[in-house]
Amino acid sequence: MCELLGMSANVPTDILFSFTGLMQRGGGTGPHRDGWGIAFYEGRGLRLFQDPAASIDSEVAKLVQRYPIKSETVIGHIRQANVGQVSLANTHPFVRELWGRNWCFAHNGQLADFAPPPVFYRPVGDTDSETAFCDLLNRVRSAFPEPVPAEVLLPVLVAACAEYRSKGVFNCLLSNGDWLFTFCSTKLAQITRRAPFGPAQLKDTELTVDFQAETTPNDVVTVLATEPLTANETWQLHRPGEWTLWRRGERVAYGRV
Amino acid sequence: MCELLGMSANVPTDILFSFTGLMQRGGGTGPHRDGWGIAFYEGRGLRLFQDPAASIDSEVAKLVQRYPIKSETVIGHIRQANVGQVSLANTHPFVRELWGRNWCFAHNGQLADFAPPPVFYRPVGDTDSETAFCDLLNRVRSAFPEPVPAEVLLPVLVAACAEYRSKGVFNCLLSNGDWLFTFCSTKLAQITRRAPFGPAQLKDTELTVDFQAETTPNDVVTVLATEPLTANETWQLHRPGEWTLWRRGERVAYGRV
Repeated sequence: MCELLGMSANVPTDILFSFTGLMQRGGGTGPHRDGWGIAFYEGRGLRLFQDPAASIDSEVAKLVQRYPIKSETVIGHIRQANVGQVSLANTHPFVRELWGRNWCFAHNGQLADFAPPPVFYRPVGDTDSETAFCDLLNRVRSAFPEPVPAEVLLPVLVAACAEYRSKGVFNCLLSNGDWLFTFCSTKLAQITRRAPFGPAQLKDTELTVDFQAETTPNDVVTVLATEPLTANETWQLHRPGEWTLWRRGERVAYGRV
Repeated sequence: MCELLGMSANVPTDILFSFTGLMQRGGGTGPHRDGWGIAFYEGRGLRLFQDPAASIDSEVAKLVQRYPIKSETVIGHIRQANVGQVSLANTHPFVRELWGRNWCFAHNGQLADFAPPPVFYRPVGDTDSETAFCDLLNRVRSAFPEPVPAEVLLPVLVAACAEYRSKGVFNCLLSNGDWLFTFCSTKLAQITRRAPFGPAQLKDTELTVDFQAETTPNDVVTVLATEPLTANETWQLHRPGEWTLWRRGERVAYGRV
């Protein structure tokens, strides 16, 4: 299995604190040694750092930790391989362009007997995760050749996720930079931080940050992770079948299938 | 204008030496302060480092220089903006998936009155370069919905480049990881290094490398750049209209339009 990390915020926010916690699980406090990746939206551009090396040993991960990047939408992942060898091509998150936007996706879980026909988007590597991402985009493009708002798109996303979930475990994060869509098949935790901000203490390494000192009173920052990342805060646990659309840190639509 | 850097080699090769030379031109010995990017194929995966900051000041560039990555195919670019603002989305190289492979593209030049209809691949940013890349891929996909060998593809690539060149300046590098295609509209220089290897000395900064010590007798490494990068070697200058297909360091097809 793998671990996911997502962020949606209403101001460009540094995810360094959460990233540091997650990276410990890549061979340190967790067994996810088979690569990691993190994607930061920067305007319409997307900055993607990835490494098939364990995050705890990764030079690229050290760069990301030394060089905090602020973003409103982030998708990260650490991998413990089940389907597909350990390689860069099999490292999440995966990216494709649709409607002139960068779509980014990461998955936790495993799908059995899943071999959709290769249509337009095709996997480069050989993971079930990238195959599902391509299938999802093929469904979206087939339903909507031209751009539609996220709210119009949601039924297609939710129906696809419900179908993938029926084939195994499918926790996922998906974004086009404007919004972040999350689906919980078995495990997904979330915290929305807003004023008054307080200190937060990582579970996986000795690090505390006082968000009060780093934020303004209007900031809203939602962080999603497979398991809660901090020890002194109350995380919301999503229920199986729960999907949510986040925009600028706020939950703007949700439901359960 | 911008500067291009390409490499095709028959063994995974460190491009650090050439990259160091190119980076000096990004605000040091050259005026290309509006971003830089470099993409390394690693199997079917593609490692992309980019920054809209001048390469001479870029933290990410310093990482790439500290952390040499070996690859058989590399595409790099430093930008002096003409069309499109300075932003990550407008930073070369550009990447799209086609036929389950990562296709990567960088352009030097400028196209006038170029507005192809948005079909399948669409630009995320607003450069003429990314628009041309998307148009090129749309032509390829329209001619060949399923994968074909590079040799079958060449007439489509060459015809498209000839057309783009008629609209301005179009020097480009394109790869799918198996091969590297180059087109010279005005300026492109190339050197193929093979045994016996000797020392090479950068033009843009005081750095000499003895390739003899870094290679085996069977290595073949072709480096392409807008302007020669070394002072003590003989670079081949491509003529306007010249296109070449490189594979594993060797020129496998070429012609002129």
